[in-house]
Amino acid sequence: MAEESVVTDLPMKRPREDEENGVSAATEAMETETISNDYISSVIPGWFSEISPMWPGEAHSLKVEKILFQGKSDYQNVMVFQSSTYGKVLVLDGVIQLTERDECAYQEMITHLPLCSIANPKKVLVIGGGDGGVLREVARHTSVEQIDICEIDKMVVDVSKKFFPYVSVGYEDPRVTLHIGDGVAFLKAVPEGTYDAVIVDSSDPIGPAQELFEKPFFESIAKALRPGGVVSTQAESIWLHMNIIEDIVTNCRQIFKGSVNYAWTTVPTYPSGMIGFMLCSTEGPTVDFKHPVNPIDSNDCQSKSKPLKFYNSELHTAAFCLPSFAKKVIDSKAQS
Amino acid sequence: MAEESVVTDLPMKRPREDEENGVSAATEAMETETISNDYISSVIPGWFSEISPMWPGEAHSLKVEKILFQGKSDYQNVMVFQSSTYGKVLVLDGVIQLTERDECAYQEMITHLPLCSIANPKKVLVIGGGDGGVLREVARHTSVEQIDICEIDKMVVDVSKKFFPYVSVGYEDPRVTLHIGDGVAFLKAVPEGTYDAVIVDSSDPIGPAQELFEKPFFESIAKALRPGGVVSTQAESIWLHMNIIEDIVTNCRQIFKGSVNYAWTTVPTYPSGMIGFMLCSTEGPTVDFKHPVNPIDSNDCQSKSKPLKFYNSELHTAAFCLPSFAKKVIDSKAQS
Repeated sequence: MAEESVVTDLPMKRPREDEENGVSAATEAMETETISNDYISSVIPGWFSEISPMWPGEAHSLKVEKILFQGKSDYQNVMVFQSSTYGKVLVLDGVIQLTERDECAYQEMITHLPLCSIANPKKVLVIGGGDGGVLREVARHTSVEQIDICEIDKMVVDVSKKFFPYVSVGYEDPRVTLHIGDGVAFLKAVPEGTYDAVIVDSSDPIGPAQELFEKPFFESIAKALRPGGVVSTQAESIWLHMNIIEDIVTNCRQIFKGSVNYAWTTVPTYPSGMIGFMLCSTEGPTVDFKHPVNPIDSNDCQSKSKPLKFYNSELHTAAFCLPSFAKKVIDSKAQS
Repeated sequence: MAEESVVTDLPMKRPREDEENGVSAATEAMETETISNDYISSVIPGWFSEISPMWPGEAHSLKVEKILFQGKSDYQNVMVFQSSTYGKVLVLDGVIQLTERDECAYQEMITHLPLCSIANPKKVLVIGGGDGGVLREVARHTSVEQIDICEIDKMVVDVSKKFFPYVSVGYEDPRVTLHIGDGVAFLKAVPEGTYDAVIVDSSDPIGPAQELFEKPFFESIAKALRPGGVVSTQAESIWLHMNIIEDIVTNCRQIFKGSVNYAWTTVPTYPSGMIGFMLCSTEGPTVDFKHPVNPIDSNDCQSKSKPLKFYNSELHTAAFCLPSFAKKVIDSKAQS
């Protein structure tokens, strides 16, 4: 019943280093050359296994139908593969960023938790999120006039446009301006009080996203937000990274003088099957994240042809309800 | 960063078949004999990998420190191992049933969702749940006078008592009576209207638990419950098994004339990182599961020395809030 035959190593082609654009090296799973790879085939032959010191002693594996792209950008290893049951999968430095099957949960929650919590958001900044999924969700809000995105890695943008059209569709909105560069530097240069909302769609705090979890970065966000502006940042899992969450909450409590909250959602292909978000507001008009003032469920912002798959107003409020073990720790840090 | 060396196959000893009690065969990871095993080492050598046709194309793996027990009961393969980061793990037919690190989420939610939804529960029946964790949680309710449990597999009970004392502690409550036998037959023999609550803590609907997902079983539960009595059953994941959930909801809607609801919780070591529960009540006094009448958070039922780790009243209500894709399907079945 639970037996599975072990398949042999997948043949893969390494992208040529002399090519200018990583995407042009997309290999369409050429089957002429077998190379070693840190993430594929060293653990379960023919399967992708996500193993990291960030979640020691456990691994989630997806069966690989075909490697669609492998490249090394200036910042990280980028890979796309066709999985057998989760659709196409985007992997950065060996860690799953999104799958077609469950990306809706992450993208919709990290975006609508902040944007539904304030009335008439107009200017929104996305840091990271190069795949474009957050842009797609921001674009549902008709009040929004300006969407800036600062992504450090052009290869992520290009790969998403090529392999994940339903995600990168966000770039097609005319309100979007893409800035390829360092989010930390970008934010420092933002005039004070520019944005209604900042969304930080980062990878884990090892690799290129490390600074996005540190105090100076949160200070830059607070400065870039208008009074009563809101931020939503990827904030790891209560099952795996409570120590990281504690630090984030402590930092945010010092910096954001409005409200500081932790919310979470289910995402099957993320470690522990869930991920959290820090939702904070700056001093100014009160933001009560748990009782959103800007519902999106049935308004005009939501295209009839592309309805929300995951987010709704009930789930918005529910996302702030935490298991007791997490609530105890987070509340103590949030109130200190 | 994400690289992991592959370890060699774990040596394991098969329990001696001539021993009367599976538990006495516990091997303490004797390292003298290497055997093949369907679940260990065929996928990631030295790791346990959970592979099943119930969740094709994906596998969750835990690093194994030591095999503590392996046995074959009349019903299933039973295994206990020490994982490197989730504590001890109980596995039935290759599928993780509980780990010390996250068992609280499942046990507390499947128990307190029903028992906190009615006033003064007195008689409670547990079907399955041989590990004793649900009993431990039922026992927190001081109003309860009688706790019956019907578990088909004595080996599960014995193994839990030996290796999971913090789970099997539930058996020590004097209100508990253990019946080793078939839950379907047990329920048929129960006089009509006996129980205030029935909790069905089953494995997946392949193997010994198959009948626990079928209509005649739900009919027996309804008959065994008093008017306005409640049932909570393990009901799979919205990410993986919506077809099974649809069938369960359809059956329950026909059988339970009170209310029919689906709730869910995060459990990292279950497939997709979550699991759901069907919460239903029989015709009689109205049961509104979403607004529990019997809060347990700070009452006397909760021993100061062993506080709830996971469940709280806020999370109870939040557990009924579903992602839009699931809400749409479940609501349509529940109302038809």
